[in-house]
Amino acid sequence: MLSVEDARARILEPLTPLSAEFVALDFAWGRVTARPVAARLSNPPADISAMDGYAVRACDTGPGARLAIIGAAPAGHPFTGAMSTGESVRVFTGSVMPAGSDAVLIQENASRDGDRLTVHEAVAAGRHIRRAGQDFARADIVLPAGRRLGARDIGVVAAANHAWVACHRRPIVALLATGDEVAFPGEPIPPGGIANSNTPMLAAVIRAAGGEALVLPPVADNIAAIAGSIDGLRCDMLVTIGGASVGDHDLVQAALAEHGLAVDFWKIAMRPGKPLMHGRLQRDTPVLGLPGNPVSALVCALQFLLPAIARMTGDRAEILERDSAVLAAPVGGNDQRADHLRASLTRDTAGGYVVRAFDRQDSGMLRRLADSEALILRPPHAPALPEGARVEIIRLDRFGL
Amino acid sequence: MLSVEDARARILEPLTPLSAEFVALDFAWGRVTARPVAARLSNPPADISAMDGYAVRACDTGPGARLAIIGAAPAGHPFTGAMSTGESVRVFTGSVMPAGSDAVLIQENASRDGDRLTVHEAVAAGRHIRRAGQDFARADIVLPAGRRLGARDIGVVAAANHAWVACHRRPIVALLATGDEVAFPGEPIPPGGIANSNTPMLAAVIRAAGGEALVLPPVADNIAAIAGSIDGLRCDMLVTIGGASVGDHDLVQAALAEHGLAVDFWKIAMRPGKPLMHGRLQRDTPVLGLPGNPVSALVCALQFLLPAIARMTGDRAEILERDSAVLAAPVGGNDQRADHLRASLTRDTAGGYVVRAFDRQDSGMLRRLADSEALILRPPHAPALPEGARVEIIRLDRFGL
Repeated sequence: MLSVEDARARILEPLTPLSAEFVALDFAWGRVTARPVAARLSNPPADISAMDGYAVRACDTGPGARLAIIGAAPAGHPFTGAMSTGESVRVFTGSVMPAGSDAVLIQENASRDGDRLTVHEAVAAGRHIRRAGQDFARADIVLPAGRRLGARDIGVVAAANHAWVACHRRPIVALLATGDEVAFPGEPIPPGGIANSNTPMLAAVIRAAGGEALVLPPVADNIAAIAGSIDGLRCDMLVTIGGASVGDHDLVQAALAEHGLAVDFWKIAMRPGKPLMHGRLQRDTPVLGLPGNPVSALVCALQFLLPAIARMTGDRAEILERDSAVLAAPVGGNDQRADHLRASLTRDTAGGYVVRAFDRQDSGMLRRLADSEALILRPPHAPALPEGARVEIIRLDRFGL
Repeated sequence: MLSVEDARARILEPLTPLSAEFVALDFAWGRVTARPVAARLSNPPADISAMDGYAVRACDTGPGARLAIIGAAPAGHPFTGAMSTGESVRVFTGSVMPAGSDAVLIQENASRDGDRLTVHEAVAAGRHIRRAGQDFARADIVLPAGRRLGARDIGVVAAANHAWVACHRRPIVALLATGDEVAFPGEPIPPGGIANSNTPMLAAVIRAAGGEALVLPPVADNIAAIAGSIDGLRCDMLVTIGGASVGDHDLVQAALAEHGLAVDFWKIAMRPGKPLMHGRLQRDTPVLGLPGNPVSALVCALQFLLPAIARMTGDRAEILERDSAVLAAPVGGNDQRADHLRASLTRDTAGGYVVRAFDRQDSGMLRRLADSEALILRPPHAPALPEGARVEIIRLDRFGL
């Protein structure tokens, strides 16, 4: 059976960042840049004052020196003349420095009497001036391609005077739930049936990862119906839920075969999570077949679907960030399957993570998964560990999961 | 001057979670529950098989025992009869257990020949059965009020058979940028003017925190124009940008006075970040006046606006989560103002955080802020610290910032 890492590598290998679209700045938060962003102006655009005070010539200053105030330069209204010896101009934080000035005398170090200024303290040339381009110069690359835009990045894009940003298209990920027993929440539930938790949950995962969920209407356990439900479908990835193994009632692979399914693999050494199917349809649409068990589906979505969507969005950051934590209680040894123990998470007094695996790890317990702040990663054949041992964890809330 | 903690407490004190709205499940990801969510059915709804195999009576099993296969119960099609001694029914993962059965014999431990089954191994009563309500029972509270819904929570809400969720209304936060020098990105920039980075950046912060940004058109430095721009405004909070101190060109307080502004405070002991204004308008609309400097504005938004919005969304989680990190380089001693050092973040081999404060901490450097993965929190009067010392940090990406 394939390892989690090998399976992920095979899923990611053929995926590339999607083509670009031009996104209005106001909608660009959380999107990923498709090109580097170059500054359209310098920041600051000119030498500006960093304080409220008076633009002066440093050589004119010294305790008791008297200067003429020949004007003011409030922000947005630069002083248009030039300053000579013995002159000063009132400035404010952000004011453009008048021609001829070379320093700012802060207002606390001067007294004003009409248009006369008495200096209390000498000021060095260059004092309290922010130089043009100190933050960035026109044509500087202020953000790289492949950057998921946080609020501070949006600030930089705006400061560089862009109202539109080239971002990678959001991947459209189609979700197909099959099964006679599955009813969407609020729909009539057949005898022995259940409310479909997988589709809404996975649609949320897709959104959290930066994709767009395309939810297909539910389909009964019938090869022709399943095959027909994806006629004409255009998407960047098809995710099927349930029916991926080879039991008597697992019809999805048979139905997808009519659309040219080439199966890459369908078994992986992980728990919860088996079976997972990976393959491609005609026109190279990648297919990921997630287990029908919701806990297994979510863990597989974390390990495979999130990184796949991140790759298609062009995000270059490490998506599956792990943390180190200390065990609050022992864990047993592991078999050949990578395990994902549902666990509660607290902090010790030094701020470090402490995790405790829940006693029952039944993959039927979705509510227990919702209560889990973290998954403890247990590699294949990992030995039993005592309380206090270090383990790798994944915080579920980190990904909107 | 007020401490950061006291200022935050005063801003949060009058704020309460907003009223509820009924949100379609497909739009509920990231929203906050306004009421506990009670299960409308049990999960599983009946005793079900956890494996593919045969429903049996445990007392009939044992190596070599032979049973009649009297039917099948695929998921969604429960077996409607009852089993007697010597009988079995084909079941699959998720099948409802037939009446009269008390265990599942997994298919690997039996051989089938037509409608006859040969048992290879005895099975204990209750084996491979998931009990009705094992995850949750009808009427159980499966999620509390005040929970920000992650994907796994959406799964639980769906499994509990809700298509709609009562969530707190998203706070509408109006953003007012004033100043003759400020042009929105792509608009003509006046002489000495700059591209307005604050409004798009803060709109992103508001969204990241779960609010809705209401961006007011820009207003010149004129009391009547500023006052007029908020005539008829309805919002849950007004955020002004710039003009909050008492310099010659700070007209915002004067304009808001015409709308009944009662100032609570307008100075805090933090860097970057002074001045910050807090008050209330007529009809008790809270007002937060952020500094015009973008770096200061973002740090103030982190410390005050994010928690304020989280409070209004009803989110009960600790929003300003801190981490512990080790210094890669010494930091100097601090004065009376809480400082927020922009820093790069890496991991040591054990997975712990290592931070390095940038040499220049000029609050004019927005691009540097975008490059900062973390802020190092330096309390007032904190002593100088050597390389290797532990500090508290805030990861900016954690909040979509």
